[in-house]
Amino acid sequence: MPQNRQIFLESRPQGEARADNFKLVTSETPPLKDGEVLVRHHYLSLDPYMRGRMNDAKSYAAPQPLGQVMQGGTVGEVVESRSAKFKPGDKVVGMGGWQEYAVVSAEQGGLRKVDTAQVPLSHYLGAVGMPGVTAWYGLTQIIQARQGQTVVVSAASGAVGSAVGVLAKQRGCRAVGIAGGPDKCGYVEKELGFDACVDYKQHADAPSLARALKEACPDGIDGYFENVGGLVMDAVMLRMNAFGRVALCGMIAGYDGKPIPMAYPQLILTNRLLVQGFIVSEHMELWPQALQELGTLVGSGKFRPRESVAQGLESAPEAFLGMLKGRNFGKQVVKLV
Amino acid sequence: MPQNRQIFLESRPQGEARADNFKLVTSETPPLKDGEVLVRHHYLSLDPYMRGRMNDAKSYAAPQPLGQVMQGGTVGEVVESRSAKFKPGDKVVGMGGWQEYAVVSAEQGGLRKVDTAQVPLSHYLGAVGMPGVTAWYGLTQIIQARQGQTVVVSAASGAVGSAVGVLAKQRGCRAVGIAGGPDKCGYVEKELGFDACVDYKQHADAPSLARALKEACPDGIDGYFENVGGLVMDAVMLRMNAFGRVALCGMIAGYDGKPIPMAYPQLILTNRLLVQGFIVSEHMELWPQALQELGTLVGSGKFRPRESVAQGLESAPEAFLGMLKGRNFGKQVVKLV
Repeated sequence: MPQNRQIFLESRPQGEARADNFKLVTSETPPLKDGEVLVRHHYLSLDPYMRGRMNDAKSYAAPQPLGQVMQGGTVGEVVESRSAKFKPGDKVVGMGGWQEYAVVSAEQGGLRKVDTAQVPLSHYLGAVGMPGVTAWYGLTQIIQARQGQTVVVSAASGAVGSAVGVLAKQRGCRAVGIAGGPDKCGYVEKELGFDACVDYKQHADAPSLARALKEACPDGIDGYFENVGGLVMDAVMLRMNAFGRVALCGMIAGYDGKPIPMAYPQLILTNRLLVQGFIVSEHMELWPQALQELGTLVGSGKFRPRESVAQGLESAPEAFLGMLKGRNFGKQVVKLV
Repeated sequence: MPQNRQIFLESRPQGEARADNFKLVTSETPPLKDGEVLVRHHYLSLDPYMRGRMNDAKSYAAPQPLGQVMQGGTVGEVVESRSAKFKPGDKVVGMGGWQEYAVVSAEQGGLRKVDTAQVPLSHYLGAVGMPGVTAWYGLTQIIQARQGQTVVVSAASGAVGSAVGVLAKQRGCRAVGIAGGPDKCGYVEKELGFDACVDYKQHADAPSLARALKEACPDGIDGYFENVGGLVMDAVMLRMNAFGRVALCGMIAGYDGKPIPMAYPQLILTNRLLVQGFIVSEHMELWPQALQELGTLVGSGKFRPRESVAQGLESAPEAFLGMLKGRNFGKQVVKLV
């Protein structure tokens, strides 16, 4: 069996996460038992939710255990199989974690075979994977976007945000992004096809950002897909229309433990807003429907997701920390093969 | 025609509302035209929402105009009629405003005949009126309270809060109130039949109040009916269960223009909460159903709402200002006859 390099969570962050919270270790891959397969990972997924799990705090998921492989989504190839369900050469998506190989139960390990004829393998970690389904769920089930409405999404150049915009355009909405810097905003408008993108880095406070949003959203905002929280959320709330709907997907601004108060909660009342948090893994029954739409969009070239690709397992911690600061551009993955 | 004493909004508050924002004037009641009725008001309703309308701010309703009669709910008796729909002696509920008499269009004036055989007239301003329907709507349509759940309501001894608790008990919920001081808490527990009531005045911050709520709500909180905002809302949010639902009905803590940030919006995400604001007057189609349940509860003596009764039109401003500070005990009305 091959040697397996792995990244463990070594310690929990105090405030900002740091590289020394992680540790690279090498181990032997154990021999397969009946019903198991050995997967060689081609790409690891790096996602903001992982930062939340590094804390030892009450949340929707149990914390990432210390001294164990960082959990996370992976795509790769079956290299050995003792299950009739998979054979060597199969491309699979799973939750293999930050390591080069994983031994997975074919029945209970959550492995899923994927077709790479139309969709590049790594996109099953992004646009045609968990982030894409997250976008689809929030937009269709919580925001309930309808033709003619204006939908705003924060972190618009990211894996989730880009899919929100593309799916909103498919539904005849005006799609407006919020992103950091001219490069990301240009990509959001020109390559993803959003109607407008506002650069939050040009604004020091929520009222200033709200004024920019007023220009980008002349008919107000009907639906908001929230990935970041804090000042950006405050600004959008100032522009929400009556009966607007807010899907709360992430609040990356607060992941380091900083307080991120919502400045104007009374707007929920005066504008009769609905604000709802969700976790996409609790709605598995809708994944096939979402993945079908997303796969078609990517396969047909209508949605060309962008990726930031870090090279080699050892680059995962720094790539992850950079993503938390918005240094990635599109879906952040780590390429292992 | 009788002389009519009226209370006008004279100026808009800067911060706290004050008595000199109001002005007592006397006018002649104009003669009736065809289709109009003259109503002599027996009781005026004083409600927290009126404070919001005193500001010249964008909100769900147009601001109360300056130099005009304060708008508000009223009950009274038809004393003269030039409409076939009403006859002298009819008891009616309407939106007559802060004045002793009102000339009202029988067709468009929103007048509704009520039966005082089982339900005392003034209760049509409270438990069997707008506040009761507000409670019913938030509890049944937003919180969607179900048997066995724990429902918390702030301002629990007030017109809306008391109805929330009684309706929640009818649905087999554990009903927990939050109120200010031992008298109100005693009333909420002993007379209204809540399972527990927490005195927020015993707590200087949200974590302290949250600890008291933990005792009162051993299974956590599934539904929250919010009337006040600020610290109280923060504390309740710390105890919400996964998939909990929050009906945002009022945020009296912020009516004077003070900022009332929500301290922990990330709990909406981690607990997958739904938070929704509403205005009961936008859901008129449900009023008959709600009023029937509330009328039966009051008529049968299962729900005995408490009132704070101020005497005479001239007492309305001070009674209103006192209510905003929580000095009332139950539904605040002004008795004119």
